Amino acid sequence: MLKQKERGQLIVLSGPSGVGKSTVIAELFSQRENIHFSVSYTTRKPRVGEQDGVNYNFVSREEFEGMIARDELLEYAEYVDNYYGTSLKAIEEQLSRGVDVLLDIEVQGAAKVRSRCPDALFIFIIPPSFEELSRRLHGRNTDSEEVIAGRLEKAKIEFREIPNYDYLVINDKVSHAVAEIEAILTAAECRVENRTSILTQFA
Amino acid sequence: MLKQKERGQLIVLSGPSGVGKSTVIAELFSQRENIHFSVSYTTRKPRVGEQDGVNYNFVSREEFEGMIARDELLEYAEYVDNYYGTSLKAIEEQLSRGVDVLLDIEVQGAAKVRSRCPDALFIFIIPPSFEELSRRLHGRNTDSEEVIAGRLEKAKIEFREIPNYDYLVINDKVSHAVAEIEAILTAAECRVENRTSILTQFA
Repeated sequence: MLKQKERGQLIVLSGPSGVGKSTVIAELFSQRENIHFSVSYTTRKPRVGEQDGVNYNFVSREEFEGMIARDELLEYAEYVDNYYGTSLKAIEEQLSRGVDVLLDIEVQGAAKVRSRCPDALFIFIIPPSFEELSRRLHGRNTDSEEVIAGRLEKAKIEFREIPNYDYLVINDKVSHAVAEIEAILTAAECRVENRTSILTQFA
Repeated sequence: MLKQKERGQLIVLSGPSGVGKSTVIAELFSQRENIHFSVSYTTRKPRVGEQDGVNYNFVSREEFEGMIARDELLEYAEYVDNYYGTSLKAIEEQLSRGVDVLLDIEVQGAAKVRSRCPDALFIFIIPPSFEELSRRLHGRNTDSEEVIAGRLEKAKIEFREIPNYDYLVINDKVSHAVAEIEAILTAAECRVENRTSILTQFA
């Protein structure tokens, strides 16, 4: 009974391109049980190799607009004639089973989630320095100088949103960043309001 | 620079007699650096074996009343003609050097600290069940049935204060309770407001 979590935590993770977020998330998921990734819904067509329910939930425009009409989306946006969004219903279903749900979204999406789910844990991942972010983006060898300059400019704008987050995790080393996120999740489980069912036996 | 903490955390730990708080604290201190115990001030005479500055800071009645007059005490009480209190000045000096300070106090003292230091971390330790608390108190073999019954009654009153705490830690196993407290302290270090100096390099 003590091990049974009453309700999962919604975790919102943001951070600039190149900070190493995907690696941190993969490592976190390999170490921690009972945490799921929120799979976005989109109306765009699957690319080669993309799986329905894994990379995205691929739906028709009609289905997506039905979700909007029924207020089932936590946040959504339209890019290049396609919708992208997060289903509040799917998340709620997991949280109620005691599963933590991680949302990897940009600062604008995070702001929308904040207005609807203020109790979520908002975590921003930063590199140890701006120079290191630039080094990491160059080290990928995938982007042109122009694209990298654009990403660094965007990072600067994103950093301005950090005061709206609860936690700041520094990815100087993946193991260190993962340990900090694990501590944040464990501490959240220990919050008095998340352990009310334990308290009933002492009342 | 990243390792340097800007400011220590004030940690208030409460829990009923018999919950195993001293063992948990000893284990926490053996595992964690940069955390100090707040030594109370008292006007009572040292008992055999008690050391000044270790068990208590032993001061005269005049000195103690001077601390009251100068508003240097975070909380204090008078029992059996002796003062007992916590020096805000001593705590503040350690926090400003980046050292965490742990206060082991009862619910009434914790309430006073809450009104003056709302940013402190308030942690309450409970046993896995009320029956287990009773077993532990009996297992000590030091107290009469009457004394134990009194401690259990007092525990029930203390439990009512739990909603005023931030965190609830279950001491089913010492290692488990210590791991939860460690996570709470690490998560607090990751809070955005505790990492503002890191942010200045990204501004």
